[in-house]
Formats: sequence, structure tokens, C-alpha cells
Amino acid sequence: MEYEANKKLIGIIGGMGPMAGVNLSEMIINETIAIKDQDHLPQVLLSVPQNIADRTEFILGSVSENPAHAIFSMLKKLGLLGVTVAGIACNSAHAPAIFNVVIDELNKSKMKLKLLNMIEEVAKVIKLEFNGVNRLGVLATTGTVKAGQYQLLEDYGLKVVYPTEAVQKKIHQAIYHPDYGIKSVTGSISFKSRQQLENATRSLIYEKVEVIVLGCTELSLAYKTNNFGGVPLIDSNRVLARALIRAIDPSKLKPWRQK
Amino acid sequence: MEYEANKKLIGIIGGMGPMAGVNLSEMIINETIAIKDQDHLPQVLLSVPQNIADRTEFILGSVSENPAHAIFSMLKKLGLLGVTVAGIACNSAHAPAIFNVVIDELNKSKMKLKLLNMIEEVAKVIKLEFNGVNRLGVLATTGTVKAGQYQLLEDYGLKVVYPTEAVQKKIHQAIYHPDYGIKSVTGSISFKSRQQLENATRSLIYEKVEVIVLGCTELSLAYKTNNFGGVPLIDSNRVLARALIRAIDPSKLKPWRQK
Repeated sequence: MEYEANKKLIGIIGGMGPMAGVNLSEMIINETIAIKDQDHLPQVLLSVPQNIADRTEFILGSVSENPAHAIFSMLKKLGLLGVTVAGIACNSAHAPAIFNVVIDELNKSKMKLKLLNMIEEVAKVIKLEFNGVNRLGVLATTGTVKAGQYQLLEDYGLKVVYPTEAVQKKIHQAIYHPDYGIKSVTGSISFKSRQQLENATRSLIYEKVEVIVLGCTELSLAYKTNNFGGVPLIDSNRVLARALIRAIDPSKLKPWRQK
Repeated sequence: MEYEANKKLIGIIGGMGPMAGVNLSEMIINETIAIKDQDHLPQVLLSVPQNIADRTEFILGSVSENPAHAIFSMLKKLGLLGVTVAGIACNSAHAPAIFNVVIDELNKSKMKLKLLNMIEEVAKVIKLEFNGVNRLGVLATTGTVKAGQYQLLEDYGLKVVYPTEAVQKKIHQAIYHPDYGIKSVTGSISFKSRQQLENATRSLIYEKVEVIVLGCTELSLAYKTNNFGGVPLIDSNRVLARALIRAIDPSKLKPWRQK
């Protein structure tokens, strides 16, 4: 098969949640310059949700099993298929306590596979496409906020602003609530989730942020536009999709557009 | 990993087109009873579009390479990962000239993998959920219509009605046109495509069909509802999604609903 000869295949670690993996796969297609099926880039999405402990629960200490090991097992599977560059469709999995363990296991192995870091890719996009921006808001799960991986953006000279604790609790419910949360209600976004997220977004704008990072792949599903009240929204899952395309064929990457 | 122990993993042959594979993956999630990430079923989507000749062009004789061989190579890759049941997210690939060759290669191999037949699954759903229906319309690519795989439904006592040749040409354009076709315009459906498809749908209703099968996975993307002018639409990709869930865990399948 040709993709073995040219040794280029995108891999997606999905299942965290499952829809975020599908969404990343879809965005790779949407961000690729193509006019027929055969122009699209080869990719494989592996989604094995039942094996991966909840990332937020691990970060907050309520489960002890590090999801890193299940993630690395999935990477090995992708390696078997010839994947050369991979991404994890989950912000919380980029918490240093998880992501660094995956990178360590990957380095110890002999796999020729490059794992991109979604958070680093977000930082690069902000420097490149939003030059001059200083204050940026982050909407994410409580796990991501507590684990602090978005602090990495401060290394790039950016000021990271999170919602207040009370608002953060609402965001978390909008994603995780068993009755109306995005992870439970598949196929649409509940009115209550949308309302809680919009309130949270407004609270960040009130804090004078210049751009807002959707720092949870589930939020990609809730926000269909790229701005809110005039403030650009940066979808971390979309940023990762674009970085994966660039890694295997930059000539096929559509120009960045803030819709 | 648990999915090796219980030996159950859904495989999707995607890339024909790429968005149809993603759509099948998404529908597996949407049709599964789940309230948290870990409740969802394990699946892998392999999409290698550049290796698979256009199915319609092969059926119509303008390319000589049978896509069956590329499809079988992908199945072997899925087998490596432990896939136990697989589906192909493409109606045209179910043309006997393609699908039967894949099945032959699969039977000759020693792989323990069951490949579902999307068309057979559509027939089963009609008998089960639309009992008493006799006349059914099919909207599909010209390749699918000429290859005649939907004639299989006549074995189930159903009368299959296709659009006239002139209307069929418009459907084909709505899918394949390089400027406005569904395969070219990713991320949305062009006004012209939608108009041509609606006209085609109306022409079938005029022929007194009782249900309409969306017999091209690209059409899943165009029709967001499950009926048109009161006539139920049956999305072949959704039917395949449900059959894949049933094959690995029937207890997780949502009841059929004609939205």
C-alpha cells in the first residue's frame, strides 16, 4: 500500500471523549486542500474509551491509575499500522503528570513516531496568527485548569486568565453532568450546557481577555463559530488538526481563517 | 489492554469519501447507550483515500483497478489491531464486482473478522422497522445504481425505484461536481447540491415510494432529518453503524427512532 511506501500516516488517539476524536478526524479533512477523495491525507483514529481512566479524575486524585499507560498502549498499536505522527484528542491528557509519562515511554521505545503537544501548538498559533495579543482566557475542565498545562503559554509571554472558581464549577458541569453535560448528551448540546458555557465566556470577556482558548476538546462541539461577542475563539482541537496536516504535508494545509 | 482480552473491536474502512468514514464513526457514538466516555464501544477508523480508486469510475469502466484489493489490504491492517467486526463506509464499494472480491479474499485468509454488508443491513431494517412497505426509492451515485446492488432488496419482496436518467445525472453532480459537489465542498453543503438533491427526492415521492434509502454515504451529510415531505429517509450509513454496535454489544444499541 502506498502509505507504507511513503511512510506517512496521521494517528489520532481518541476516546477521550469519543466525539472529540471524531471531531479531530473531521477537522483534519476540513482543513485539507482537496477536491476529490484521493486528495485527502491518510489517517487512523483509535478510540478505546473503556480502557482509559478519566483524565480529570486522575489529576484531581480520585483515581490512582495514570491514563498515560493506556495512551501509550494505543500509540504502540498506531505504530504497528505505520503511523508517523500522532495527536491526542484531549486537553486534560496533556497535563504534565500524564503527557510527560507518555513521552518518557515513547522515548524509551524504539518507535519512529512523533507525538505532537496540543498545548504547544496552541501557543505557536497565538504567536503567529494573533501577534500582539497579551491576555488570553482558557475554558477547560477543572482537571486541565488544576493541572496547569496552559501555564506553558506564559513561557511565550502570554497572560493566562481562568474563570473564577464558581464559574469553573459550572463549566465542568456543562461538560460532565450526567443529565445534561456534553459527554452524556450525544448528538446535540443541551440548552443548560450552552447557557453555562456562554455565561463563562462572558465572564472571561469581562476580564478583558483578547482571545479565548477552547481548552477542552468537548467544547469544539458546543461552539460552532470562531468568535464570541467579537472575541476570537481558538479551538485547541482545530489547532491540533492543522499541526498534524502540517507535519505530513504542509502544501495541503488551508490558510488559517478566523471565521 | 482490555479490548484484546475481550476480543471485541469495531473496524471502519473509511476514506470513500473520508467524511463518510468519520460520519459512520460518529453515528456509532450517537446510537450507543452511554452516559460517560468509558461506556462507549471501542472502534478504529482507517482512512487511506489516496490508495483506493474511485468506486464509481471502476464500476462504470473508466478505471481498471478494482478497489477491492486496496479495501482488503485495509482489512488486514484492521485485523492486526484485533478488529472483530468491520464495515465499509461506502455504498458503491458494496457493488458485487467489488464487495464479492473483498469477501473472497477475506474467506481465503485466516482472519477472524466479520465484514458486514451494508445493503443487507438496510434490507433487514426495512423488514423490521417498516413492515408492510413495498415501494422504496434509492438515492445513490450512478455507480451504485448501475452496479445494481440495491436489487438485493427485491429478494426481500421490495420494489426498488430509481430516479430517471436525467435526475440521476443531477444527483451524481450533487455528489461529485468539482466546484459544488459534496465531495469537494467540505465543511458544508452547497446550495446547488442541496437543490439538486431535493428535486431528486421529490421526483421519487412523485413515483409513490413509501420510504427512501440514502444509498450513498455522502448523502448522510446532506440530509440532517430523517424524513422528507413525510416520507421516511433511511440513512444506509446509520443502518451500518447500528449493525456494528449490535454485532459487538446489542445491549448498548439505542432503540430505532425515525426522527
